[in-house]
Formats: sequence, C-alpha cells, structure tokens
Amino acid sequence: MKNVHRIITLTTDFGSSDWFVGAMKGVIWSIHANAQIADISHEIPPGQVAAGAFVLANACGCFPEGTIHVAVVDPGVGSRRAALIAHTSRGFFIGPDNGLLSLVLNKDPPKQIRRLENPRFFRHPVSATFHGRDIFAPAAAHLAAGTPLAAFGPRVQQYHQIWTPEPPANQKLIQGEVCYIDRFGNAITSIPESWIKPSVSELRLQVKRRLIPLRNHYQAVAVGQPVALVGSHQFIEIAVNGGSAVKILGLGLGTPVKIKTGL
Amino acid sequence: MKNVHRIITLTTDFGSSDWFVGAMKGVIWSIHANAQIADISHEIPPGQVAAGAFVLANACGCFPEGTIHVAVVDPGVGSRRAALIAHTSRGFFIGPDNGLLSLVLNKDPPKQIRRLENPRFFRHPVSATFHGRDIFAPAAAHLAAGTPLAAFGPRVQQYHQIWTPEPPANQKLIQGEVCYIDRFGNAITSIPESWIKPSVSELRLQVKRRLIPLRNHYQAVAVGQPVALVGSHQFIEIAVNGGSAVKILGLGLGTPVKIKTGL
Amino acid sequence: MKNVHRIITLTTDFGSSDWFVGAMKGVIWSIHANAQIADISHEIPPGQVAAGAFVLANACGCFPEGTIHVAVVDPGVGSRRAALIAHTSRGFFIGPDNGLLSLVLNKDPPKQIRRLENPRFFRHPVSATFHGRDIFAPAAAHLAAGTPLAAFGPRVQQYHQIWTPEPPANQKLIQGEVCYIDRFGNAITSIPESWIKPSVSELRLQVKRRLIPLRNHYQAVAVGQPVALVGSHQFIEIAVNGGSAVKILGLGLGTPVKIKTGL
Repeated sequence: MKNVHRIITLTTDFGSSDWFVGAMKGVIWSIHANAQIADISHEIPPGQVAAGAFVLANACGCFPEGTIHVAVVDPGVGSRRAALIAHTSRGFFIGPDNGLLSLVLNKDPPKQIRRLENPRFFRHPVSATFHGRDIFAPAAAHLAAGTPLAAFGPRVQQYHQIWTPEPPANQKLIQGEVCYIDRFGNAITSIPESWIKPSVSELRLQVKRRLIPLRNHYQAVAVGQPVALVGSHQFIEIAVNGGSAVKILGLGLGTPVKIKTGL
Repeated sequence: MKNVHRIITLTTDFGSSDWFVGAMKGVIWSIHANAQIADISHEIPPGQVAAGAFVLANACGCFPEGTIHVAVVDPGVGSRRAALIAHTSRGFFIGPDNGLLSLVLNKDPPKQIRRLENPRFFRHPVSATFHGRDIFAPAAAHLAAGTPLAAFGPRVQQYHQIWTPEPPANQKLIQGEVCYIDRFGNAITSIPESWIKPSVSELRLQVKRRLIPLRNHYQAVAVGQPVALVGSHQFIEIAVNGGSAVKILGLGLGTPVKIKTGL
Repeated sequence: MKNVHRIITLTTDFGSSDWFVGAMKGVIWSIHANAQIADISHEIPPGQVAAGAFVLANACGCFPEGTIHVAVVDPGVGSRRAALIAHTSRGFFIGPDNGLLSLVLNKDPPKQIRRLENPRFFRHPVSATFHGRDIFAPAAAHLAAGTPLAAFGPRVQQYHQIWTPEPPANQKLIQGEVCYIDRFGNAITSIPESWIKPSVSELRLQVKRRLIPLRNHYQAVAVGQPVALVGSHQFIEIAVNGGSAVKILGLGLGTPVKIKTGL
C-alpha cells in the first residue's frame, strides 16, 4: 500500500521555462520525501481546460492503481471555484473543479469526492495566483503520506463538466467538435467511440464541408488522404495518412464535426 | 541526514532537445545512484544569467532543507570564472561564479563558500564547453554521497553579483528594470518588496511613460488594465489583468522601471 | 545488480505536450515500481532517426553500466520493421530496428541482440501507432524487473545502419554531411574523429564553398569566425565562436561536408 501511493503525476499549463513546476516538486518532497513524481505534461495550452482533461484521461490509465494525479489548468484561480480530490477505482485525482477532472471521472465514476478546504493541508501563505504550489501539490503529498481523504474537506456529489457527456438522441446525426490537437497534427474530437452503435454501418464524418471515411487504421487510405478512426484514446480522431490533418484540412480547436450514418 | 541530501535540482539554459541534461543525470547517478533529481528549468534563455538566478531563487525556497541545487547558465564556460559551492541554512548551491547564485545567497547568507578546484571530483577529461557534465554535476553527486565541503577546494568570501542589491538612497525615486518575463507575459522587475517602506503610501510605477498603480491582486484593476504588485517571488511585478503585460505594454528584458511615491 | 538495473532512460520524438511520455512512464511503473526514469530528450524532430541516434549515443556514455536505454523515433511504426533489444558492455538498448541504435552499437559492439517478439511482454491490445507504450516501455520494465534477455525473442545478428560507418578509402578526401544541429546552432557532421589519421596535418573542412580551419577550441578563432573541431561527441563539428554556425553559414541537416588534407 505504501508503495502504491508513492507515485504522483503532474499535468499543468505552467510550461517548463519558469519555476512553477520545480516549486510544486519541492513542496511535494518537503512533505513526503519518498514521492515518485512523473510529469505528464506542462505544455497544456494556457487555460485550455479541455486539452488538459484529455491529456490526463489518456495518460492516467497507464499508471498503477493508487497513483495520485494532480492536474492544474486553472484560469479561475483565485475565484470561488472549488478545489477537489476524487477517489476512483484507478486512483486519486486532485485539481480545480472546472471540468479538468470530468473526462476521467465520467469514465471511472468516483467512490468519493471531497473539497480541499482544510487549511491545515495548505502551504501558507496561500497565494492568490499559485494554488498548484499552495493547495494542490500539498494535498497530493499529504495524501501520499497517509492523510485520510476525510481530513481534506466535506464530501460533494457533483463536479463541473467540460462538455455534455450525453449520447445523441439518435444515430443519424452525431455532433461534436475538435477538442484536442496532438504533436503530429491529428485532430481529436469530443465524440467517444461509445456513442456509435456497432450495428451502424457506413459511417462518414463531415468536417469543413468534407466527408471523410471512418476506417480502422491510418494506412486504410492513400498517403496524403484524410481518414477518421477511433484513436487509442477511444475518441473519434481525424488524421491524414503521413501528414498533418490540422494543416491539410484547416482544422482548429472547436471546429464542428458531424457523423452521419447510412441508416 | 542521508535522506535530506538525496535531492538534487537542475536549473540550466541547455534546453530539452539535446543530450546535455540527460548527460548530467547520468553523471549524477553514476556517482550516487540514489540521488532524486528534479528539473527546475532547462529553458532559461541561453546565457541569461539573471533569468536563471531568478528562477532558482523562486524555486529553491520550496525544497526541503539540505537540497543540493545545481545551476548552469554559463556563457563564460572555459574562461577563468570560478566554479562555486555554497552552503546556506537552506541547502547547497553549485554553479559558476557569474551572479547566477547571487540572488539566492543575498537572501540567505552562506555559512561557507568554496571554489570547486579539486580535480578528484571532476569528470575527466574536462571538456572546455560542458562544465555542467564535468564539474557541476559531479560536485553535486559527490556532495550527496557524503564528500565534505572542505574537500572541494579553498574557501572564498566573495561572489559575483548580477545587479546592485543596495536599496535606494531615498524613497522618492526607486529605479530598476525588467529582469524576468514569465510564460504568462508578466514582467518581473529587479525591485524587491523590501526596498519599499510600508509607511509609504500612494505608490505608482512608471514604465514606458505610463503610470501604473500598485495594488494587491491582479483583479484590483479591470480586465485588460495594467497593474503592479508584489509577486509570490517578492519582487515588484507588472501584469495586465487577464492579458500579457509584455505584449500590451511593449516591455522587454532591461526595460527601465521607476517607482514614484507621493511623499 | 538489482540496483544497477533500476535506471531506464527515454529518448523519443514524442514532444512534451501530449500524454505519450507520461503513458510510457505509467506503463514502466505499473510493471516495475522501483524503476528510476530519466528523460534524455523527447524533442527529437519528428521522424529524424539520425538525430535520435546521435542524442542517445552522446548521453548514454554518462550513465552507469547496466542502464536500460529506450529510444523511440519510429516513423515506420506499424510496418514490418523489427523491434530490438541489445546488450552491450555499457547496458541495454531497446528500440525499433531503423538505425536508431546503430551509432551506439557500432561504438560498443553488442554481446547479444534479440527481437522483441514475445507477446507476453507486450501491453495489450498493441496499438498500431504507439509501440513506445505497448512494446518498448514494457520490454524495458520487464528487463529491469529481472526477465532474462532470452525470453523476449529470437537472436539476430544484424541491425539497420543510418549511414555507412566505413572509413574513407583515402585521407585526401573525406566526405560526410551535417547530421545534427544543437540548441546553440552548432552543426555536427557524420564524420567521426577516428576517420582522420593523427599523422595528417593541415586539415580544412569545406562546407558551402567555404574553407574552415580545424582547431582545438572555439576560441582558437576570432569571435564571429567559423571553426571546425572535434566535439565532446567525437564527431567533427562546425561552430562559430560566439554565434550560431547554422545561421551564419546557412547550414541544415544534410548539408554536404568535405575534409581536405594537405597530403
């Protein structure tokens, strides 16, 4: 058990040039010297909560059970948004209640969510602009060091969503948008694989007035041609075989996407 | 004690694309396999000693006592500048004597400073261009492994300063300059909070012929408006609520800044 | 021995903004919780196998014997290229058989090379596009956890080369190309120091119709002047004292380089 709780991951929009990430690690090790810290990403575009949620959701499934995941993409820092700690079958998730944790918690419903409100587990003085250092990192370290969940604050039942997770009313028209762009120029949409019934055949994705076939692999289309597929993240992804879908198709965050079926 | 000395931090301008940082970590673990290494930043702009000094000073306060901090922003590598190891109440600081350690050491006066001169603790052959790998990383690892300070070289009393740390003669006019720009476009000045007497009221900061009010929080001004405040680093910082001060006000490293009082 | 095998390094072109590197670390720690992971670089330009080979070759020599090095620059992922694990006097090297390991293995001939073919040591389901997570990271973790080499797959004798490692037929004309550009704008060529006989004097490097002297240090020429030298990587490097050779001389990856002797 002690071993399992040693791993703490960090997902932020702090970048890697300033002292922000270093400060969080120092705070963690000051409280729990044996923590094993993994950076997932610090290059989430500033304030893009959905991108952070997506990166966290894709990485956390690879970590051992009991891992403590800290995520800080927090444009509302200093406002009244709550700070959360959630316990799921997979591990623990700590971050602002702005939707950043919602993709993970929707997939793996939490056994318990609490608000981080107990000042005993804050770093003082609490800065108005750096809760990563003063609230979230200390919470992770205290949890790793054995503080029980109940000590952090009161239970809550709800958490903020970044987009509506309800499946579409019918299978004839499924709508979503581009919600993440990876290093290779693939555009990942907000449409999960689970929205598409296996019985439905002849799927085509429409984006920017263009119809794109859904296939199983990038290589199912010729080099330079667009293709839609279910990525390893289990969302519908738009790619170009051997190229950047974002550049070639002119996609961006928020570009609307529809899936039409042959029903 | 053994535990306390396990943490080694790295602050450099080496970037993260080449092999430089990996080489330093390999050298450290070759000498002291149990070292726990934290990257503070490797994205200090090349050769900008003041930026490195600032990042180090802001991060190191979060680490446990006894942490060993290695900093390498070293445009004079291969020249006759000295290599230092300093012991303060907070921990150990290792780097070139070019001002990089001065902000930290001014805040936390060293009990002892020594020059790294004993070739027994160098990696050989010592490259003319990569003292991070051949002098600074090995010193940190040997220190972590238990080598006493006195073994590294002779004591020295002085260290190089990056800017004059003396407070201004009078409170009517305090002068400084922009010395660090963070990821969010905030411009941090060389004027520490301690230069401003609490008794002084009605402070205004002048930059680029513009007068900017000093307040306690970003949100004390309307969105899009500039504000000066004491940052979590305890220096005067110029920000724009919800925007980039650097872009909106046209600031850069070295932009002169004055603080005028209503005295 | 247990201790020696704890270190795993990662060299990839995955960048640091997505979840790819975090996923690899999670996979490693899920299999072997005590692994000590060092990032060498994740900023190899996408698909540039030679750059990855070069970074790995330069960093790995600094790590302790027995270190496990994982390298993934893998434009052919999903095709039929083999996945390798090699054991040398220095440690273990794991990656695709596309030349990425060749610089290291040429310098330090492997005692044993095997193909990673045993699905028992894969993460399932194996994605068509992310062998870093599903094949290479698990192999490293299982090896670190004590799985014997023979369990991973059949022995092989050959590995792919990125460039011909044969020395030139005569010393009058040695040809190569720029194969790596570092953060400081130095251009490293494919010509190893060992190709140049010590007896040969008056060497001049020709690049872009310009003759550049070979010297021992950057400072052997005036500031702003080009110089060729043997870098700490033991290849011929083109630099400009105090500047960027790449910008000043207009060099790029693949720029042809000749060395002419006074013989």
